This record gives sequence, C-alpha cells and structure tokens, in this order.
Amino acid sequence: MQLLQQKIINEGTVLSDHVLKVDAFLNHQIDPQLMVEVGKEFARRFQNDRITKVLTIESSGIAPGLMAALELGVPVIFARKRKSLTLVNDLLTASVHSFTKNETSDISVSQKFLEPTDNVLIIDDFLANGQAALGLANIVELAGAKTAGIGIVIEKSFQDGGLLLRDKGFKVESLARIQSLQGGKVTFVEDLEVVR
Amino acid sequence: MQLLQQKIINEGTVLSDHVLKVDAFLNHQIDPQLMVEVGKEFARRFQNDRITKVLTIESSGIAPGLMAALELGVPVIFARKRKSLTLVNDLLTASVHSFTKNETSDISVSQKFLEPTDNVLIIDDFLANGQAALGLANIVELAGAKTAGIGIVIEKSFQDGGLLLRDKGFKVESLARIQSLQGGKVTFVEDLEVVR
Repeated sequence: MQLLQQKIINEGTVLSDHVLKVDAFLNHQIDPQLMVEVGKEFARRFQNDRITKVLTIESSGIAPGLMAALELGVPVIFARKRKSLTLVNDLLTASVHSFTKNETSDISVSQKFLEPTDNVLIIDDFLANGQAALGLANIVELAGAKTAGIGIVIEKSFQDGGLLLRDKGFKVESLARIQSLQGGKVTFVEDLEVVR
Repeated sequence: MQLLQQKIINEGTVLSDHVLKVDAFLNHQIDPQLMVEVGKEFARRFQNDRITKVLTIESSGIAPGLMAALELGVPVIFARKRKSLTLVNDLLTASVHSFTKNETSDISVSQKFLEPTDNVLIIDDFLANGQAALGLANIVELAGAKTAGIGIVIEKSFQDGGLLLRDKGFKVESLARIQSLQGGKVTFVEDLEVVR
C-alpha cells in the first residue's frame, strides 16, 4: 500500500535494526485519513471472505480495526489485556508471550460477542513474532468460530511471525512488509500484491 | 443524540445505580456506524472552536476520538496509561485518581505531538468524576496549549464531574446525559441542546 509506505518513510523513525517507531501516525498520534484508507484496503483484500466480525487488541489495533469493520459493515471487538486470569466465567482468554518484554500475559474477550457462526477477521497494527495474532486466533477457536483471515498494518518480515501464521494456514494480508531496518533505513519487501 | 440514547436503552445494561455497561457497542464491542455518527455530532458541536488536535485516552476513548478527528480533519492523540512515571524526558504526564478503583495512576503524551499553538478537543467515552478529563486538560496545559472543549459520549450527570469541569470554565458537550440509573432504568437529562 503506497500511501502507507510513503508515510512510514516520511514519518517513521528507525530506532534499531528491529524497532520502527510509528507513533506519529499509528500508535500514539493517529492520522484518521490514513486509517480510512487502511480500512478500505483491508476490506478490499478480505471482501470475498464473508467476514462477520473484526477482532483486534487494545490499544493500537483499535483504529485500524474500527476502520476495517466500518468498511466491511460489521462490528469490531477489541480484546482486553490482562495480567492474570480473572475469575469472571464469561471470558474467553488466551495467553500471549511477548519476546520483547519477556513476559506472558492474558488477553480476553467476552464470550457473548463471538458465536460459532462467526467468520472473524483479526486485525493488528504490527506483526513481529505473531504471538498476539495467535492469541486472538485461539480466542476465536475457543468460541467455536472461524478465523477467516489476519490483516496487519505493518509486518516486520525479517521476524518469524508471518511465516508462523502462514504455515498454520491463515490468510495473512499485510499492508506494508518490511524486509529490513538495517543501517537506519526502511527496506520494503517487493509488493507482490500489485502484480498478482 | 437520539441514536445514541436509543442504543443505550436497547443494548446497555444497568448493573447498579452507578454502573451502566455499554460493552455491546462502545467499550469492548464497538458499533462502527454509531461511531461515525458520534464523530459527526462532536464535529458539529465544536465546529466553530478552531480545533487543531483531538486528545483522548486509551482504550475506550480511541474510537470516538478517531471519528471526531476524522470529521474535524485533524490528528488524534491517545494518552497512554502508566502505573508510574517513566524516566523518558519527552513525556507530558498527569496523575489521574480513580474513585472506583481508589488508586492514582499516570497518563502520558509525547510532548512532540502538542504545541503551544494547539487548540485541543478532549474526547472520552464516559464522564463520571471528571478526573480523566482533568488529567488530559493538565497535559494540554503542560504543553502550553489550549483546551478548546471537552466532548463526552456518555455523561453520568448524577456524578459531579460535569459540574466540576463546567465550573472550571470548560465547554463540555455530552452526547447522552444520564440523570439516573435507579431501579435498573436509564433516565436521560432532558436534552436542552435540541431547543437551544
């Protein structure tokens, strides 16, 4: 997605070979018009997948998830991050390991919002190790519903999350795929979507 | 706002005389089309206030804040909740006391996203004691910017936050004002906005 790549180049900051800061337009300050375009692009890529719900995770997934849901004409649910299992019995809960923070935490969704007939599109801002997306897919599975696809705003293709999710058979669509952040420079994976 | 009041009546749950659960359309599952209308209504009410930025707080403020910002044609920033002061020196930080949880926590915004020339619209999902909105207004003040107004999706008018903020001179616009939740029933404040 050209507009997003341009935004990353113009307003993103490479902090290290593994860390890209996009707090100017995605996960602290948000560019609403960019989110509209992101939502449209997700809707286009999943238009034939009969999506009934969008599922994302607080906080940075909410903006792209909301806009994708708006375009698809379905509700969006955001999973809550929790430090430990609560004793509330109407929650669907999955553990998510963060390699960055080296800690495991729980994410939860009220079971009343996911039904076995749901065809769920999972949306998140970043894909690195794939653990958050896997946790969301686990929650969908706990509900007896189906993960129809996973939509990512920025995929760090030099980490193993994309491979992990695609190996499991998930349809993963990333709007920007970063091959490398080496030397303080953002290099994108050649966009195969365009010529497909 | 008629559509919002109807949604509260149809899909909200009164849990006690003080607690209204709106996780079906506002703060867990979100109705994107309702958020579009909420954004339009905020934009209408603050259209003459020369807003340059929307400021909200994670996680439940993001959806209404994003849609207001989209309609106003400005960026939105969401404050991060933090348990303690980080040692990062480019953060604007305010303390927010939660009467519900009886604890004080910090909220923060990167100072690079707020400038003295900014005219800020603060958006939040709920107004009860007004502490979150005050914390956000403190951050605006720390940046040397101006709080042009405070937009609230649901105000619990039987709590003192609305009075507190209006007494301080803030222009507060709430899209639904709840007078009482007694007897398991939602009673709205007569909507004076309509006849104004």
